[in-house]
Amino acid sequence: MQRENKSKLIARLNRIQGQVGGVTRMVDEDRYCIDILTQLQAVRAALAKVETELLREHIDHCVSAAFATGNAAEKRLKADELVAVLERSMR
Amino acid sequence: MQRENKSKLIARLNRIQGQVGGVTRMVDEDRYCIDILTQLQAVRAALAKVETELLREHIDHCVSAAFATGNAAEKRLKADELVAVLERSMR
Amino acid sequence: MQRENKSKLIARLNRIQGQVGGVTRMVDEDRYCIDILTQLQAVRAALAKVETELLREHIDHCVSAAFATGNAAEKRLKADELVAVLERSMR
Amino acid sequence: MQRENKSKLIARLNRIQGQVGGVTRMVDEDRYCIDILTQLQAVRAALAKVETELLREHIDHCVSAAFATGNAAEKRLKADELVAVLERSMR
Repeated sequence: MQRENKSKLIARLNRIQGQVGGVTRMVDEDRYCIDILTQLQAVRAALAKVETELLREHIDHCVSAAFATGNAAEKRLKADELVAVLERSMR
Repeated sequence: MQRENKSKLIARLNRIQGQVGGVTRMVDEDRYCIDILTQLQAVRAALAKVETELLREHIDHCVSAAFATGNAAEKRLKADELVAVLERSMR
Repeated sequence: MQRENKSKLIARLNRIQGQVGGVTRMVDEDRYCIDILTQLQAVRAALAKVETELLREHIDHCVSAAFATGNAAEKRLKADELVAVLERSMR
Repeated sequence: MQRENKSKLIARLNRIQGQVGGVTRMVDEDRYCIDILTQLQAVRAALAKVETELLREHIDHCVSAAFATGNAAEKRLKADELVAVLERSMR
């Protein structure tokens, strides 16, 4: 992964980790369920965005390289891995 | 798409279309909401499965071909299209 | 369900059934996978909207009635059913 | 929320926070994208489970109380809040 993209992803994950801590405090302070749920949905959306970024990286580099220069088995593997990840995301 | 996969997909979509008709009848007959919802979730899961199959086809053929023999712009386009579709699925 | 809401839901489901037929034709005519996938995602979003409408009806009427006048077992059942439906939606 | 359920939720959220930290390390160590994605999906599934637990609590207590003893406006508000949360989860 390029250094710049990597830094952005790590910054984003650190922010998400902080958000999870915030949700924990909300639970601890008996905040209203709906407010906690709204916050949890924001965290899940932020995680989904990280997944999309990683998928982009993966397609741009690993999949692209395997399809350009890999042998049939390597292409098969990359395609299957990608479909498996998408399948789980789509459920 | 290979003839066999195409027939399977069409059969699956026909079945889904029938399931949607079944849900419409359930609503018309004032069936219990939870039963209708359960049925709707089954339809959505069946549609997600069709999407996964199509994605597999797309990756195996279109993306694979672009990455193997396309120029940089074609690869860029295929990767961007794929990420855009996944992004919408993941939300 | 009120007559008006019921008519709207049925109209919406009929439209969705037509959309599924449209997707089937797209597959049959070998249209571009990404276009088919985009259409499938629209169908899934339309179904999710029907689910939300039904949930609203269910909460407004069945759950509301059980919680207002039902005994403990009826309340328990309504709450469990609702959570089970949501759990499946959230996956 | 009952003390026991609250402790469980907090323990679960602490675990999720640790998992996010683990994903950050995986990115930092340039681990394979697919492995990171798999881990991210596990975190998202764990968060969805927390949401379901909170929804259960919310339905069992807040919604249940409003529907049992609240006035029409309070019931309306609880139902609308619940549907709004579910709507966002379902997208």
